[in-house]
Amino acid sequence: MFKKLVLSIAACSLLFPAMAFAEDSAADTLSLGINSIWILVSAVLVLLMQGGFILLEAGSTRMKNAGHVAGKTIFTLGLCSLVYWAVGYGLIFGGDNVDHAINRFIGSGDFFFNPSIVGETGDDYPSSVFFIFQLAFAAISLTIAWGGFAERAKLSAYLIFSILFTALIYPVVAHWIWGGGWLAEDGAQDYAGSTVVHLTGALAALAATILLKPRIGKFNKDGSANEILGHNQVFSSLAVLLLWVGWFGFNAGSALTVGDGFFGYVAFNTQLGAAAGAVAALLISWLVNGKADISTMLNGALAGLVAITASCAFVDPWAAVVIGLVAGVLVFYSAKFFEKIKVDDPIYAMSVHGAAGIWGTLANGIFATQALADQVGVGQGGLIDTGSWHQLWVQLESVVVCGAYALGASFLLLGIMKLVMGLRVTEEQEIIGLDLSEHGTYGYPEQMKKAHAEA
Amino acid sequence: MFKKLVLSIAACSLLFPAMAFAEDSAADTLSLGINSIWILVSAVLVLLMQGGFILLEAGSTRMKNAGHVAGKTIFTLGLCSLVYWAVGYGLIFGGDNVDHAINRFIGSGDFFFNPSIVGETGDDYPSSVFFIFQLAFAAISLTIAWGGFAERAKLSAYLIFSILFTALIYPVVAHWIWGGGWLAEDGAQDYAGSTVVHLTGALAALAATILLKPRIGKFNKDGSANEILGHNQVFSSLAVLLLWVGWFGFNAGSALTVGDGFFGYVAFNTQLGAAAGAVAALLISWLVNGKADISTMLNGALAGLVAITASCAFVDPWAAVVIGLVAGVLVFYSAKFFEKIKVDDPIYAMSVHGAAGIWGTLANGIFATQALADQVGVGQGGLIDTGSWHQLWVQLESVVVCGAYALGASFLLLGIMKLVMGLRVTEEQEIIGLDLSEHGTYGYPEQMKKAHAEA
Amino acid sequence: MFKKLVLSIAACSLLFPAMAFAEDSAADTLSLGINSIWILVSAVLVLLMQGGFILLEAGSTRMKNAGHVAGKTIFTLGLCSLVYWAVGYGLIFGGDNVDHAINRFIGSGDFFFNPSIVGETGDDYPSSVFFIFQLAFAAISLTIAWGGFAERAKLSAYLIFSILFTALIYPVVAHWIWGGGWLAEDGAQDYAGSTVVHLTGALAALAATILLKPRIGKFNKDGSANEILGHNQVFSSLAVLLLWVGWFGFNAGSALTVGDGFFGYVAFNTQLGAAAGAVAALLISWLVNGKADISTMLNGALAGLVAITASCAFVDPWAAVVIGLVAGVLVFYSAKFFEKIKVDDPIYAMSVHGAAGIWGTLANGIFATQALADQVGVGQGGLIDTGSWHQLWVQLESVVVCGAYALGASFLLLGIMKLVMGLRVTEEQEIIGLDLSEHGTYGYPEQMKKAHAEA
Repeated sequence: MFKKLVLSIAACSLLFPAMAFAEDSAADTLSLGINSIWILVSAVLVLLMQGGFILLEAGSTRMKNAGHVAGKTIFTLGLCSLVYWAVGYGLIFGGDNVDHAINRFIGSGDFFFNPSIVGETGDDYPSSVFFIFQLAFAAISLTIAWGGFAERAKLSAYLIFSILFTALIYPVVAHWIWGGGWLAEDGAQDYAGSTVVHLTGALAALAATILLKPRIGKFNKDGSANEILGHNQVFSSLAVLLLWVGWFGFNAGSALTVGDGFFGYVAFNTQLGAAAGAVAALLISWLVNGKADISTMLNGALAGLVAITASCAFVDPWAAVVIGLVAGVLVFYSAKFFEKIKVDDPIYAMSVHGAAGIWGTLANGIFATQALADQVGVGQGGLIDTGSWHQLWVQLESVVVCGAYALGASFLLLGIMKLVMGLRVTEEQEIIGLDLSEHGTYGYPEQMKKAHAEA
Repeated sequence: MFKKLVLSIAACSLLFPAMAFAEDSAADTLSLGINSIWILVSAVLVLLMQGGFILLEAGSTRMKNAGHVAGKTIFTLGLCSLVYWAVGYGLIFGGDNVDHAINRFIGSGDFFFNPSIVGETGDDYPSSVFFIFQLAFAAISLTIAWGGFAERAKLSAYLIFSILFTALIYPVVAHWIWGGGWLAEDGAQDYAGSTVVHLTGALAALAATILLKPRIGKFNKDGSANEILGHNQVFSSLAVLLLWVGWFGFNAGSALTVGDGFFGYVAFNTQLGAAAGAVAALLISWLVNGKADISTMLNGALAGLVAITASCAFVDPWAAVVIGLVAGVLVFYSAKFFEKIKVDDPIYAMSVHGAAGIWGTLANGIFATQALADQVGVGQGGLIDTGSWHQLWVQLESVVVCGAYALGASFLLLGIMKLVMGLRVTEEQEIIGLDLSEHGTYGYPEQMKKAHAEA
Repeated sequence: MFKKLVLSIAACSLLFPAMAFAEDSAADTLSLGINSIWILVSAVLVLLMQGGFILLEAGSTRMKNAGHVAGKTIFTLGLCSLVYWAVGYGLIFGGDNVDHAINRFIGSGDFFFNPSIVGETGDDYPSSVFFIFQLAFAAISLTIAWGGFAERAKLSAYLIFSILFTALIYPVVAHWIWGGGWLAEDGAQDYAGSTVVHLTGALAALAATILLKPRIGKFNKDGSANEILGHNQVFSSLAVLLLWVGWFGFNAGSALTVGDGFFGYVAFNTQLGAAAGAVAALLISWLVNGKADISTMLNGALAGLVAITASCAFVDPWAAVVIGLVAGVLVFYSAKFFEKIKVDDPIYAMSVHGAAGIWGTLANGIFATQALADQVGVGQGGLIDTGSWHQLWVQLESVVVCGAYALGASFLLLGIMKLVMGLRVTEEQEIIGLDLSEHGTYGYPEQMKKAHAEA
C-alpha cells in the first residue's frame, strides 16, 4: 500500500514539473506584462514632465523669448532621442562582453539600439520599454541644462550641445551609477537620479551660464542685481503640478518591477518629500521676507521632489518629510547665494536641481535604513540607522566625482563651442528677443506687436 | 484496479494542495501588482486634476490675481498632504480596534501613517498606494473649497483652513461613508464621492463666500449683479479637459481592484455622464439665452462628471446619460439662482460641485439597479428598478447629514478664523490685486505693468 | 510496475485537466485585468490629446477667437461621445450576424451600446474599455477636422457636423480597415490610424476649408498670401508635447493585449518617428529659409507621429527613423504647397494629418517586414523586405479609397449644410471675432477690451 502510494507520487511527480513549468512560464509572462505597463506608463509620465519644463522655462522668462523657449524643447527632445538611440543608450547599458576594467568606466554596444520584438524568456520586461524609460531620463537631464542657456543662447548652440550632452556627458555619469560602473560597485545610492539626472543637468547649466555671462540688465555695475521677472506665473504653477505628477513615473517607475508593490512605497515617500518642500519654502520666505513669493513656493515643491529622488526607496516616511523640509529651506537660501555671486540663473536650475540634488544624494548617507537598503539591494544603511559613516562617504564620493565630471566636461565642451561657433546671440538680438531674431516671428504676435508699436 | 485508481488519486491529492497553494500565492502577488498599478495610476490622474483646478480657477478670475490663484494650489496641496498623513488618513481609515460605538462616527489610529514596505499576504493592494489615492481625493475636496475664497481671501486664511479642513471636516464625512462609519452601515451609495468629495468641498466654499462677502463690484446697491469675467477661457477649456481625463482615475480608480474588469464599466458610464452634461448645458444656454456661452458649456461637462461620480458603478448606461443631461441643465439654472440670491461664486463651485453633487447622490436612489448594487456590494437598487423608495431615502439622508456637517463645521471654523485673524484682505489690497499685495509681484508682470502705466 | 505507473499517470490526468482549467481561468482573469488597465490608460492618453488639440488650435489662431476655438472642443467631444455610443460604434464593430456581403461595407448592431458589466469568459478585455478606447479615436478624427473650420464657421455648423461625421463618415472608413470590412480582408495595414483617423479628419477639414473659403485677409487679390499668425506659441509647444505623450496610448494602446510586451516595441518606434520628424523639419526650414520657424519645428514632430501611426508595428527601428525624417521634410513642403494653391489651413491639418497620413500609410508598403506583419497578423512584408509590390498596392488602394470616401462624403454633407443653414459667420462677425459674436464675451476679456478701447 505504502509502496503504491510512493509509486503514485512518483508518477505524479513526472507530470508536475512539466505542468509547474507551464504555469511558471504563464506567471512569468503575466509578470512581464505587468512590469511592461508600469515602465511604459512611467516613461510617459517622465516625458510629460517635458511639458512641465516647457511651461516652467517659458513662465520664468520674458514674453519676447516665449516661443523660442517653449518651442526649442520639442526639437531638443527629438534630437536627444535620436542621439540616445544611436550612442547614448549603448554607452550606459551596452557592453556585457567588454573588459571589466573598461566597463567600470563606460559601456559599449547596443548602438542604434534594436530591441527584441517581444520580451524574451526570463526577462522581467522587454528592452523596448526599458529603453524609452531611460531615454526619458536623459532628456530630462538635458532639459534641466537649458536653464543655463535661457534668453541669450543661439539656437545652434542648443543643436550642438544636445548632441554632445546626450553622447558624452550624461552617459558617463549614468553608466557609473546605473550601468554597472564603478560607483555602482561602490554601492552608491541614487534611486531615481538626484545626482545622475538632476545634478548633472544643473552643472551643465552652471557651465553654460558662466560661459554665456549674465543676461543684459541682470546685474548693475555696482554688483547689485535687478529682478528680471518671468512673464506668466500660471504657466509656472501648472508646470510644477505637471512635474509633481510626472515624478511618480520618475521615482516609482525606477522600481522597474512591480512585484509585491514596493514601488508604491517609493511613490508614498515621493509625495511626502514634495509636500514638505512646498510647505517649508512657503514658510521660510514668509518669515524672512515678510511675504511668500510665488517663485519660492513653487521652487520648494520642486526641491523637495529633487531631493527625495535619490532617497525615496531608502528612507522611512518621517525622513522623507525631513528631507523635503530641508530642501525647501535650502532652495530659498541657495537662490539668494547664486544671485549674490552673480550667477544668472533664471529658471533656478542650480538651486532646484543642483543644491537639492546634492542634498538628496547625501541624505541617503544619513537617513537610509539597512532594511530598505537590503530591499533595494544597493549600498547600506546610513548614519542614523547604522551609526556608520560609510554610506555617507560613498554618497559624498559620488556627488563629488559625478559633479566634477559633469561640470568639467560641460565646461570643456561648451568652451570649445564658444571658441568655434560662439554661444550667445548679439546684443541687438537679445534686446529684440529670440523669437524675432532666431525664428522670425514673435511667440505672442498680437501682444508683442502692440507693445512694439507703443514703444 | 479501481482501488489502485482511488489510491493514485489520493496520492495526487496529497500534492495538489501544496502546488495549488503555491500557484494561488503567485496569482495573489500578480493580482496585487495589477491592482497596485491601477490604483497608483488613478492617484496620479486625480493629482493631475489639480492642474485642471489651477487653470479653471485662474482662468475664471482676473489677471491681477492670477499668480496667487494658481500658485497657492501648490502649497495647499503640500500642506494638505502633510496634514492628511499626520491625522486625516487615521481619522478616516484608522481604528480597527476602536470601540464600535465610536468607530461609527470617527476613525482613530494610523496617525503619521507608516505603510508596510510591500503588500502583505492576502492584501489586494499595498497600503502605500491606497494612501496616495485617498489623499488625492482629500486634496481635490480642499481645492474645490477654494472657489469660495477666490480673489479676496488672505494667504494666511488658505494656510489655516487647509489644516482645519484636512484634519476636521473632510475626514468626518469620508469616514461616515467610506471608512466604515454609520452611513456606510446604512448602505449609502457614493461610489467616488459626489457627496464625500464634491458636496463637502462646495459647502466649505459656500461657508467661505458667505463669511467673506462678495467681491468689490460684484453686486450693485440695487441688488443687481455685474459680470466679473474670468481672464482666460483657453485656460478654462484646457482645465475641463484635464479634469475630464483625470476623472477616469477618480471614478474607475475607486474600484480599487481590477479583477474581471468592472472598473471599465465605471469608466464607460463616466464618459457618458460627462458627454451628456456638456451637450445639455450647451443646448439649454443656447435655447434660453440665444447664445451658448463658454462658461456654461464647460460647467456642463463638469456637472455631468460630478453627478455621475456617485452613480457610475450603480446605473445602466442610459441612466448615466440621463443623469448627465439633468446635471447639465441643473448647473445652468443653479448658477442663475446663486447669482440671484447674491452669493458670489466665481468658480461656480456651488453649482458644479454642490448642486450637481446633490443630484448625483440622489440619482442613485432613482436609477441604481439591484444587479449593480450587488456587484458593488453597497446598498440596494433604486426606485425604478426595485419600486422601493428605500435607497432614495438613504441617499437623501446622507446628503442632508453630510451637507449639514460640512456646512456647519466650515461655517464654525471659518467664523472663528474671521474673528481671530480675519479672512479678507483690505479693500485697497483687493483692488490692486492679490499678486502684488500678497506676494509682491504680478503674476503677469509685463502685461500688468503696462496696464498699470496706462491707467 | 510499469502498468501501475501508467495507471497512476492516468489517475493524475483525471485531475490535471480540472486543475489546469482552474489555473488557466485564473491566468485568463489576470491577463484580462492587465489588458484592461493598458487599454483604459491608453484611452485616457488619447483623450488627453484633446487637450493638445485645444492648445494647438487656440495657439495657432487669433485672440479674438480663442475662447470659441478652445471651448467648442469640449462640447464637440461630448456630442461625439453620445453619437458614437448611439450609432457610431455599432456601425464599425456591430454585426457579427449580418450578411457578409453587407458586413464587408458597414457594421450593424450594438447601437446605444450596453457593455457587459465585467469581462466575459474567454475575452481578452471587457467591451467597456474597448469602447472608450475606440471612441477616443473617433473624437480625435473629428477634432482634426475642425482645423478646416477655424476662425470662420458658425457654432451651429460644429453641432451638426459633429453628428454627421461621427455617424456617417468616420464609421465607414473605420469599419473598412478595423471593423472586419473589405480593406481588412485585403490586408490593409494601418496599425493605429494614419488613414482611419488622421487622413479622414484631414480630408473633412479640406472639404470644410474649400466650402468655407479662406479667412478674410488671408489672400490678396493678386493671389499672394498674408501670414495670419497664431497668438500663442507656448500653447502650441505644450500642445505638441501633450500630443506626443498621448500618442503612446494611440499607437501602443492599439496592441489591445499586453501579452509578451510587443506593445513596447510599438512605443519604441513611435518615439523614433516623432523624434526624426522634429529634427528633419527643423533642419529643412533652417536650410531653406535661413531661419527655423517654430511652427515648422512643431509640425515636424506631429508629422513624424502621424506617419509612424500606420507603421509603428510593422517596421524596423531604422525604418521608423526614415519614415519620421521624410515626414518632417514633407510637412514643410506640403504647407508651402497648400498656401500656394490658396487653401487656408490655419492649423496645418492638411499637411500634418493629410500628407503625413498618406505617407505613413504608404510607408508600410515599402518598409514593413514579413516577420512583423506575421507578428501583427495583418498583410505582408513590403517592398524592401520581400521585393514584392503587393503590400504597397494594398496600401495605395486603402489610401485612395478611404480618402475618396472621406473627402466625398464630407464635401456632400457640408455642401448640404451650406445650402440649408450656412456654414460661415457674417463678415462683421468674423471681424469682431467668434468669441463675441458666437458666445457673447471675449475669451480674454481684459486684454481684448483694452485692445478694443485703443482701436
